[in-house]
This record gives sequence, C-alpha cells and structure tokens, in this order.
Amino acid sequence: MSLAEDLYPSRGDCEPGIYPRIDPVVYASVDTPPPIARELVQRYERDGFLILEKLFSADEVAAFQCELQQLRDDPMLRRRDESITEHDGGALRSIFRVHALSALFGRLVRDPRLLRVAQYLLGDELYVHQSRLNYKPGFRGREFYWHSDFETWHVEDGMPRMRALSISIALTDNGEQNGPLLLIPGSHRHYVACGGATPENHYRKSLRKQEYGVPDDASLAQLAEAGIVATAVPAGSVILFDCNTLHGSNSNITPQPRSNLFFCYNAVSNRLLTPFCERRPRPEFIAARQRIEPLRELQGGLLDEW
Amino acid sequence: MSLAEDLYPSRGDCEPGIYPRIDPVVYASVDTPPPIARELVQRYERDGFLILEKLFSADEVAAFQCELQQLRDDPMLRRRDESITEHDGGALRSIFRVHALSALFGRLVRDPRLLRVAQYLLGDELYVHQSRLNYKPGFRGREFYWHSDFETWHVEDGMPRMRALSISIALTDNGEQNGPLLLIPGSHRHYVACGGATPENHYRKSLRKQEYGVPDDASLAQLAEAGIVATAVPAGSVILFDCNTLHGSNSNITPQPRSNLFFCYNAVSNRLLTPFCERRPRPEFIAARQRIEPLRELQGGLLDEW
Repeated sequence: MSLAEDLYPSRGDCEPGIYPRIDPVVYASVDTPPPIARELVQRYERDGFLILEKLFSADEVAAFQCELQQLRDDPMLRRRDESITEHDGGALRSIFRVHALSALFGRLVRDPRLLRVAQYLLGDELYVHQSRLNYKPGFRGREFYWHSDFETWHVEDGMPRMRALSISIALTDNGEQNGPLLLIPGSHRHYVACGGATPENHYRKSLRKQEYGVPDDASLAQLAEAGIVATAVPAGSVILFDCNTLHGSNSNITPQPRSNLFFCYNAVSNRLLTPFCERRPRPEFIAARQRIEPLRELQGGLLDEW
Repeated sequence: MSLAEDLYPSRGDCEPGIYPRIDPVVYASVDTPPPIARELVQRYERDGFLILEKLFSADEVAAFQCELQQLRDDPMLRRRDESITEHDGGALRSIFRVHALSALFGRLVRDPRLLRVAQYLLGDELYVHQSRLNYKPGFRGREFYWHSDFETWHVEDGMPRMRALSISIALTDNGEQNGPLLLIPGSHRHYVACGGATPENHYRKSLRKQEYGVPDDASLAQLAEAGIVATAVPAGSVILFDCNTLHGSNSNITPQPRSNLFFCYNAVSNRLLTPFCERRPRPEFIAARQRIEPLRELQGGLLDEW
C-alpha cells in the first residue's frame, strides 16, 4: 500500500459511486499561448476529449498501416509479453510499449503535432506511461467495457493525480458500425469509485476482458444521461482524451478492422508511486515506472529517413 | 434426412461459399395491388429489407413497452423453455413464441399493417414460423453474429424454400450506439453455404451464441463490399427483411436497452419438412411444425379491449 495519501480510493472497502474530481483538467498557465485554437482547449476542458480530424496526411497513414502489418506479421514480436491475443482465439488484440518496439511509432510519439498539445494541456514535461497498438479485427473484434483509465492507473499502478491523457490515432476508418470508441462527455469531471477487490496478476486477464475497475450500472447511467459520443472518424484522425474520461467500445462483427494507436502521456511530476492496492505493480510494459525520461520533440519530418 | 431434394445444401460435406438463390423475393402476382407504395416493394426486392419508420403510434409503443415489462417480471414465464437467458448470467435475452404467450402480441401478429404487407410479398396465406421478443439489455447486451435465418431454418428445421420473412418491431429507440440491427443489402440474392456439422441439440446453445450456420469470412467480406446498413430507427418502427438477408448486431455496452419483437412469417405452402441434416427437429416453440393455421387479419383496433 502506498505511503502517499489516497485521494481517489476505489475497490476494496470503498463505497462505489460518484465522487468529485479534485484536479484540474487543463494545467497550462493562462499566459501560455495554446498550440491549438483556444475554443478547442475549452471544448477539451468541458467534454474531457477532443477530436482532431485527419491530423495526419494520407502518406503518413499509409506508412502507419504498413508498420501495423509488419508488426502483426513479426513472429518474434508475437512471442513477447507485449503481445496480447484475443480471449477466445489466437488473433492479436494489442501490442504494448509499441513506441519502443517500432522506430516509426517511436518517432510519432514525439511528433510536435501531438506532443505540443499534450504538454500544453498537462503543463509539464511528459513521458510515455503506456503505449498500445490495438487491432480490433474485423468479424470477431471484442468489446471494451466502460472504464476510466485513471481508476486503473491509480489503483493498480500508483498514479497519484489526474495529470495524464491519452491520444488515440485512427489507423483505419472508424465507422459507426465497426465498434468505434464511445466516450461519455463530462464524465472526466467526476470520479467513479468501483466495487470489488483487485486479484493478483489481474492485468493478464484484464487486458483481454475487463472485470475489475468496472463502474456500477447506476453511476454509468447517471453520467451517460447527457449522452454518449461515438467517434466515427476517418483514418489519420486523432482523439485526445483525459485520463479520467469514461470510454469503451462495442464489439465489431463487420469485416472492417478498426485499428488504433494509443499513446498515454503522463506529467513527469505525476510519476508512479506504490500502487494504491495491496498488489505488486504491473509490469513495466504496461505502466512505465523506470523509463520516465522526458520526451523531446522530434526534429524534422515524421517520415524523414523512412 | 429429408426425402425432399435439398436445393440449398449447407454444413456437413458441402463446400462453403456463395451460391445463387433460386427462389423469387417478391411472390405477389403482377395484378395484385400492393398495400404499400410500389417503390417500397421494389426497394425490398433489391435490398432484401425495408424500413417503415414509426408504423406504430406512441400509444401503441407505450402498450408494447408495458407488455414487455410485464413479461420480463413474470416468474412463471421465466421458468418456461421459451425464456432464453444470457450466456454468462441470468439476464433475460429472448422469449420465444411470444405471440402465443402474450395476448397483445397475439393481436399484433395479425395486425393488417403487418400481415397485409407480408402476405403480399410472399403471395400466400401465412402462419407464424417463429416469434421472439429480444431484450438486448443495456450495459451487457451481447452481439448476434452474422447469419441468414433461412440457412438455419432450412438445415435445422426443414424449411424447403425461401418464402418467408421477418418483421422486427423496435420497442425502444435503436441508436447507432446501442447495437442496432446490421443488414447487408443484396445479400438475400445469394445463398451462403456454411461449413461444419450440426451437433445434436445445437439450438440450446445457438440461441445464446452463434457457432454453426456461420458464413465464412471470405463470403461475408465479398457480400459486405457494397456496404452494411445500421438500422438506427425510433421506437415503433418496423424493419421487414427477407428470410435470407444476412444480418447481425454488435454488442451493447451503453445503458440504453434495445428491445425488439420479431415475427417470422412463412407461406403455408412452404411448411416444414424433415430437417435437411441428420438431427431431430428443433422444438415447436422455435420452429412451428404442428401449429400452422393460416393467420386471419385482426378485426378492430389493435388496442381495443386493452
């Protein structure tokens, strides 16, 4: 159990339900000029997410898709712990720490179009808390149940405060029919404490199927009253969302895969402590504890030397 | 094994793949005046389905929803074979033969707004081959994988020809986010023979999770090339679809349930034979074999005496 005060208790003895967020959403000082329109910053603060359509060019998307195929077909990579397969079959579901395993995605995580926005919103130097390539294959893509990333990162990883965000980059077109990311606008301003304990080595299972850190039905229904946004976006688009925004996705039975790249940036000042549960920390490839060097902006074009 | 010639072989020794349909889609004789606009009939013939938005009034929908609640809360009903619960929990998924178990839905199945259209399209007297109330509960509504109803009705029930159709009545709003019915337009003009045998008592499992009679990936991808239609419709709307139109639905993690009533009408001339597989017929409540009295149009208003 962490020696730090637990500002966001969840699971164990805590009472499930909705509690207030005590951290800011946007950390930039007022005199810092934003790298995107101020209206977009305000939207992010209000909704807990922001969609930037087609931030990446068709050429860049083509390079990402080529890299995605190469990673999928790499037999050595398939044997690594970072590769997570589907619950009921061998299909590849995710590759973790993909910014370290792929040179291209290692450049992309430092691309100023992403990094400057994330640094502005979090008002600090940043490192990669987690990165992930999600294949949501056609025909048999499984659902991700509703969750706040922060709840898990806090309880299981020891992230003390809400000062992190995720960037999802659509590598394929995300239509309304192939299980797009669903978000609950405004949910980031509340903290949903979840019931249930945390079993040892829970992460092995939870990466396939969410069973702990799951908000209760009443809290979900209350927060979703204002609506749910299905993020149907073309390939190359970016969805930024706060670490505490409730999100999930339905299954995908269509033939169209829905692949996304996730980069989770955390403020250097918000580095991990001992987990806020009686369990050993999750592995480094899921939650960076040692590798927390501040990211330096990429110099030159993303596809230079490519 | 049926003594009749098997015009649509599937499973067992057959080669999976796409074969031509040898039956008409619209059976009405040319001089019969259609009960709906001729353009709608043509659309049904071309796409294999037709959406009639808000065919039922708000009062009628309210009565349907009230009936849906009453049936769900009926402990006697819950113990009947007709009640199917979710794979991984006790939540009610479907009630079969609901037109016989509910007086209101027994009137509805004979409502001229439905029956006249179905009779016109199938060009015969009709009986109820199957009826079903589907609760797709919020939060944990599971997916239905792609299938042609006819493939199963033919192989497992012994329905000889494609001369049947389904009517789905939306009892709740079907949004793009809560796992609406997905249809592949034009797929009804082909017959997808499926691989795999049919295990004994397969229906008990298949009503929860589709495992046999599943089209192969290549056939699905080919037929879905022209697109997939997600039928987001308000409560009270009706979707008519041919018995051979490929359809399915993704899971539903949103708090909004998505309930539908299905009536499957079959032509009296197309009544069931011995199944086209080496198995005993499925039970009467899933596939009517004895109860095949032609439906008589309801006299008076649907909610009269209600």
